[in-house]
Amino acid sequence: MKSVGHTQEAQEDIVQKASVEEERGLSIPSVCTEDGEESPGFAHPADMADHLENLTPEKRVCALRHMPKEDAAEALAELDGNLASDVLENMDADVAAQIIAEMSPDDAADVLDELDEEHRNVLLHRMEKEAFEELRNLLSFDSDSAAGVMNTEIILLERDMSADAAIRHIRQAMEDMENPYYAYVVDARDILVGVLSLRNLMLSRPGTLVSELLTGHSVISVPYDMDKGEVAKLLSHYNFLAIPVVDYEGHILGIVTYDDSMDIIHEEASADMLGMVGADPDESVDTPWLESVGKRLPWLLVNLFNSAVSASVVYMFEGSIAQMAVLAVLMPMVANQAGNTGQQALAVLIRQLANDRFDSRKSWVAVWREAKIGLVTGSAMGILAAIGSGVFTGNWKIGLVMGGALLCDMILGAIAGGSIPLIFRAMGRDPAQASSIFLTTITDGAGFFIFLGLATFFLL
Amino acid sequence: MKSVGHTQEAQEDIVQKASVEEERGLSIPSVCTEDGEESPGFAHPADMADHLENLTPEKRVCALRHMPKEDAAEALAELDGNLASDVLENMDADVAAQIIAEMSPDDAADVLDELDEEHRNVLLHRMEKEAFEELRNLLSFDSDSAAGVMNTEIILLERDMSADAAIRHIRQAMEDMENPYYAYVVDARDILVGVLSLRNLMLSRPGTLVSELLTGHSVISVPYDMDKGEVAKLLSHYNFLAIPVVDYEGHILGIVTYDDSMDIIHEEASADMLGMVGADPDESVDTPWLESVGKRLPWLLVNLFNSAVSASVVYMFEGSIAQMAVLAVLMPMVANQAGNTGQQALAVLIRQLANDRFDSRKSWVAVWREAKIGLVTGSAMGILAAIGSGVFTGNWKIGLVMGGALLCDMILGAIAGGSIPLIFRAMGRDPAQASSIFLTTITDGAGFFIFLGLATFFLL
Repeated sequence: MKSVGHTQEAQEDIVQKASVEEERGLSIPSVCTEDGEESPGFAHPADMADHLENLTPEKRVCALRHMPKEDAAEALAELDGNLASDVLENMDADVAAQIIAEMSPDDAADVLDELDEEHRNVLLHRMEKEAFEELRNLLSFDSDSAAGVMNTEIILLERDMSADAAIRHIRQAMEDMENPYYAYVVDARDILVGVLSLRNLMLSRPGTLVSELLTGHSVISVPYDMDKGEVAKLLSHYNFLAIPVVDYEGHILGIVTYDDSMDIIHEEASADMLGMVGADPDESVDTPWLESVGKRLPWLLVNLFNSAVSASVVYMFEGSIAQMAVLAVLMPMVANQAGNTGQQALAVLIRQLANDRFDSRKSWVAVWREAKIGLVTGSAMGILAAIGSGVFTGNWKIGLVMGGALLCDMILGAIAGGSIPLIFRAMGRDPAQASSIFLTTITDGAGFFIFLGLATFFLL
Repeated sequence: MKSVGHTQEAQEDIVQKASVEEERGLSIPSVCTEDGEESPGFAHPADMADHLENLTPEKRVCALRHMPKEDAAEALAELDGNLASDVLENMDADVAAQIIAEMSPDDAADVLDELDEEHRNVLLHRMEKEAFEELRNLLSFDSDSAAGVMNTEIILLERDMSADAAIRHIRQAMEDMENPYYAYVVDARDILVGVLSLRNLMLSRPGTLVSELLTGHSVISVPYDMDKGEVAKLLSHYNFLAIPVVDYEGHILGIVTYDDSMDIIHEEASADMLGMVGADPDESVDTPWLESVGKRLPWLLVNLFNSAVSASVVYMFEGSIAQMAVLAVLMPMVANQAGNTGQQALAVLIRQLANDRFDSRKSWVAVWREAKIGLVTGSAMGILAAIGSGVFTGNWKIGLVMGGALLCDMILGAIAGGSIPLIFRAMGRDPAQASSIFLTTITDGAGFFIFLGLATFFLL
């Protein structure tokens, strides 16, 4: 985030709300508040959820139990996943099942997915047969796939319907569902053949057939097993409100909507930052800490091994260091500076690879760009470091060795930082995962080797 | 990105397109293609823009010049900012002005904002007075603010309109604009008093007044000068399609829509990764490389200074290293490992601070969580490093010093990594910017001090 002047509290003040009288608001029932008075109303379930997140677990369960089921369903859908499953586990199963039944199927599946299997089955078996089967079906899909995040509430039209009949059909369907973004047109075999926006329908002349409104363009859809990150990228690429999810025969199964997409985009964009340093891309402050230990240890072990490799380079020059201990003082500066240069290149390339429009032919132009940046910044830092270390040690030869090593290692760091994500991708790996760890091995090892090597050759 | 199995090419294959006959497609005019044949049609301007990005600059200008103005406008809006301004600078000013006139005002302002002032004025003065004034007005806002990204094409309703009149009004307005997400209700003084979705209107009984359809909830809006990142967070928080932008008197100026919001969210989430290592948060592979040099140099300079501070710690123990050169071999491993631990904590906390729902009271719980992770991973790595260095040097005392120093520095790294973003935020700074540089100074300096200090005390 670039602007941080506004903390959450300040932000709430800044959001202006036109003052109109409250008619029906969401509120915390009086039996669950500290002072026994009903809480002030919230205009939106997301605000209610924020408030619930700051309550104690007991009060949170109490509030959700006592408020109208549909309000509880909306608030539960907005709660953080870990907290939502916590609430459901500590609530009477009948009440929990009633709340889940009020949620939209995709939100209900998300919440149930967080529960352990036993709890999930208890709740599922208390639901009506139709809802039970729909949810069990949704839960069978990989939660990181298009089908795992899709919404199954969609409006289907037939090709030979009139536009007026379609509008009537939509009006009726709208009473039970959230905003319909598009209506999807299917043929007799239920295969997706077209998409209409409400705009298309509202602008149609009376008597037009649905089939006449179809633009003739192909419908862009995604297969049910596409990674959710790719789906979100496509949705953002096309600026769609929703994208249809189909099976391999072309039958429509559901839609992925822009709101889920925004969450996925945020999650995946910040996942790279975590992956880069060897943390789990899904980790948050709510991840149980021992789980984090398990996820981080393997990469810390790789890092320990890698840093032992760099250390072995230093070991080769143990004799030089024994003769001239000041080399040990300057050597980490070379490695550190090149590591930082490399990380900057790394971050730029990882960001670019996360962008679906990045042409692979441009990749190596981008590495060349980093090499040029490394050359110029390396020269500047090299000159400074040469002067600084020359003055500090009173030995201009040390200064020259320091400056030269810094320049070489910074150029190498820039090229390595730019290339690592591209190489990882070419290998079919995540371009970000642990990239910083591998980069540092290169910049440390090479930095020590170049600096100590030059020093041994020229100074001793 | 977690899934990288699909490259861009593969992704295009995966996107399924129901096969229907092409009616009108976007295509590259034949005069501008290699083989003199018209390119295949594109179903969506975003795909056309992708294709244009891979052409040579001359062919790109040629294609945009020769295609219908409205198609060119849509494709231009989807082009990368640097390329779009490039096209406009190399095109006949009259044609460029015509294309810009076809764009939606927010897209037009974005493109014009990338041009240098002279070019911008040339183009603006070729437009009609109304468009000229609207664009000049939009360009006067900070491009990182709500007003800088808002769309001014909105549908306004009056309170005492009937719902049917409102629907007719919307139908008419829809002919000239993109999808209207909501209709905004204003009072006699043009102050925003309510918002209606098309769903609300379509479900209304005939004869209802617009004022009766208002829910009574306050309208959530943002002031024109709110940071665009905050606006995008709010939009995502509330799952809105659009959020109204108002001035401090409450007059509606425009809306920020979900599609711009998705771009902003992606941009800002990946900005943290760049900021963390001291690159410019807005940098991409298309940023002119000398501009990147200018942006990165200051932080590289800070890093050089900081690593000199850590190096001065080593200097304090120059005598110990001269006596026992193997210390110089092991010392970077301590610093490196603690640095990596700290970066993992850093990334988790930065991600969490980017989430508007993160309660500041929870912050220190998160640091405590990192300290526990540091204790366990530090113990595991400390034992391994103790055994490894003990065996390697044949001196179990060196092993103990190494293990102890690693444990201490890793705990310190975890706490520092967790705290730095919180401290930066409390200081009103960006929690990410250069955080990794400051972290490394701490883990390097402390690592060298603890390791060399213990070694001097116990070994020499």
